[in-house]
Amino acid sequence: MPLQDFMKLVSVDDHAIETADVWTSRVPAKYGDAIPHVEEVEVDTVRLQLNATAHGRVQTWVYAGKTYPSIGLNAVAGKDPRTWDVEPARFDDMRPGCYDPVARLADMDADGVWAQLCFPSFPRFAGTRFLEGEDRALALDCIRAWNDWMLEYWCGVAPDRYIPVCVLPLWDLDACVTELRRAIDLGARCISFPENCSPLGLPSFHTDHWDPVFARAEEAGMPLMMHFGTSGRTPFVSPDAPAPVVVSQMGLNSMSATADLLLSPTFHKFPRLQVALAEGGTGWIPYLLERIDSVWERHRWYSGVDVETRPSTLFARNMWGCFITDQAGIDLRHRIGVDRLLYESDYPHSDSLWPHSRKHLAEALTDVPDDEAHRIAELNACELLRWRPWV
Amino acid sequence: MPLQDFMKLVSVDDHAIETADVWTSRVPAKYGDAIPHVEEVEVDTVRLQLNATAHGRVQTWVYAGKTYPSIGLNAVAGKDPRTWDVEPARFDDMRPGCYDPVARLADMDADGVWAQLCFPSFPRFAGTRFLEGEDRALALDCIRAWNDWMLEYWCGVAPDRYIPVCVLPLWDLDACVTELRRAIDLGARCISFPENCSPLGLPSFHTDHWDPVFARAEEAGMPLMMHFGTSGRTPFVSPDAPAPVVVSQMGLNSMSATADLLLSPTFHKFPRLQVALAEGGTGWIPYLLERIDSVWERHRWYSGVDVETRPSTLFARNMWGCFITDQAGIDLRHRIGVDRLLYESDYPHSDSLWPHSRKHLAEALTDVPDDEAHRIAELNACELLRWRPWV
Repeated sequence: MPLQDFMKLVSVDDHAIETADVWTSRVPAKYGDAIPHVEEVEVDTVRLQLNATAHGRVQTWVYAGKTYPSIGLNAVAGKDPRTWDVEPARFDDMRPGCYDPVARLADMDADGVWAQLCFPSFPRFAGTRFLEGEDRALALDCIRAWNDWMLEYWCGVAPDRYIPVCVLPLWDLDACVTELRRAIDLGARCISFPENCSPLGLPSFHTDHWDPVFARAEEAGMPLMMHFGTSGRTPFVSPDAPAPVVVSQMGLNSMSATADLLLSPTFHKFPRLQVALAEGGTGWIPYLLERIDSVWERHRWYSGVDVETRPSTLFARNMWGCFITDQAGIDLRHRIGVDRLLYESDYPHSDSLWPHSRKHLAEALTDVPDDEAHRIAELNACELLRWRPWV
Repeated sequence: MPLQDFMKLVSVDDHAIETADVWTSRVPAKYGDAIPHVEEVEVDTVRLQLNATAHGRVQTWVYAGKTYPSIGLNAVAGKDPRTWDVEPARFDDMRPGCYDPVARLADMDADGVWAQLCFPSFPRFAGTRFLEGEDRALALDCIRAWNDWMLEYWCGVAPDRYIPVCVLPLWDLDACVTELRRAIDLGARCISFPENCSPLGLPSFHTDHWDPVFARAEEAGMPLMMHFGTSGRTPFVSPDAPAPVVVSQMGLNSMSATADLLLSPTFHKFPRLQVALAEGGTGWIPYLLERIDSVWERHRWYSGVDVETRPSTLFARNMWGCFITDQAGIDLRHRIGVDRLLYESDYPHSDSLWPHSRKHLAEALTDVPDDEAHRIAELNACELLRWRPWV
């Protein structure tokens, strides 16, 4: 039995639902109603993401005068899949573990997962919500408030079970570097960073814009956790395509990020920088690396990319794939690199297998040698994050 | 040696460059200058696709008053990869085999490829260029003219070496059905059809719009060859991303088409309809089918998709993957279905390995049993297309 009891499941992708007070209790009162806060509204039907709807008396975030109805962003753990088109629209619609790090520990224990890395929800996974705010001072305070909440409160509840993660004020490079230093001082071990900055109106990985941030991250041994969707784009689907069409394709975002990064100067400038493709899946990695190498071989001469280093060697040194279930990826682990695979439980989203995560991983690892199973379940994540507080 | 001399290479994806007279010699003269024709112009620099440029005295298509400078759409076979940023802009810039089906036979012989399936170039791969023409009568005549040129002239040069393919007047369903019947009478064995009609302003596969065409295609045993890019979209890349970034990701279009089709009613309504993903690559297929199945299992209940039939079983019955080189796909062939794999040479584009196609395939099939190699190289295509005129 490869997945043995002593092997901890360290998940590098889960999601925290913010409570109503995250910003109102931390951001200076001078901003008044612009501060992100929760209001109750009566709605006929409000259309949420992925064609989900909500109706009746719902709770909604309000930030800088704008309403954001998706309180319970895909917080469906424990709900009957037949009801998944109705997004949780009130805190009392969700399991308390979604927003309460104390209650969540019991859910993690039921799930057999030791540690989680909790991405933001209202701020969006890489904090890009606050790019939308015209008041940049407020936006910066909101980023700081979320980092304080996550690093001091949430992780403080169980420092050996919650992986410290931070987000950055992406619109202001100096503020990024300052906040990164501050987050490191507060114990952050990784940064949630966009998979592609260009759709956000920010410079791409093909410029030197992000160098100060990447240099600091590399120096501090802080990986960039790039969750699919953080570019603000999703794969194109027909407007009338049913929800499963886009949900099944989200890994394509991570494939795009891979091609973009490997053919950019990033890992040449920062050879020790690490990037993990949160929720990207893994079974496509051998195909795409072969494809990128093949294109690079012939297109490198005229296109301005580095001509010396085969892109797949950069993946092996700088990138990591993440999976919830991906039998193709597990079976292809030697082509991907056993040491480059990370596990995730994605609680409390619809892709999560809560409360059976451990059981499913154990089945998936049936034919995997013990030492490889231990790497995939626990050790790779601890090595990447330089975090293993229980040892 | 799996790839034995008696095994013919039947390629299901190549590209024909139209000569200047294709339409002027066939379309009624009444349309005058609106008829697609070639003009010579002097340009400083004209930007073409994929950041390629051309300069000097170039030849350009002109259709309905609009100029289309890319005469030699990626027609780079035989050219030094260091010059690939400069697109062939004159017929005398390309190997004659690009536009001359007689000269092409010698190139095919050098390449070790027995048969090719030649997609349109100026009309775009699925004929969607003619969606741009306001004069629908002219557009229909242009579609007919291309089909005549391909089916009567091009294939007529060597009926046992060129696979008869047609395109359709997609803006007019009745005209589609009529032209499909006419093309079948002229010997067509397959249809080049868009991978997703929605970006073209046409109904998606989630409607019943295309049913008359699909019914006829199914009845006639005519597969739909869906070349990546025929939706008119390409994967998003930063504007400053070097060319290899988008070139390496084109298979993502085929992944999207796969998710879209398998979660649509198409193969439920037309259980014998066949779709091949031209140039999509194959190594991603096991990953994506696993992912689609997994999402379908839980999201099927509320989303309106068919709840009975696992999507991967539809792939095994209705879809085909195509590759030029794809070692991951060959090694995973049993998960994909040895019988669902098609070979292609992609002459004369930059992805082609001309004139070493046969050699490369032989190497790729080194560890493949003879009977499987024969299926992949020749028999699968012949079965799909119901075409094997040399037997």
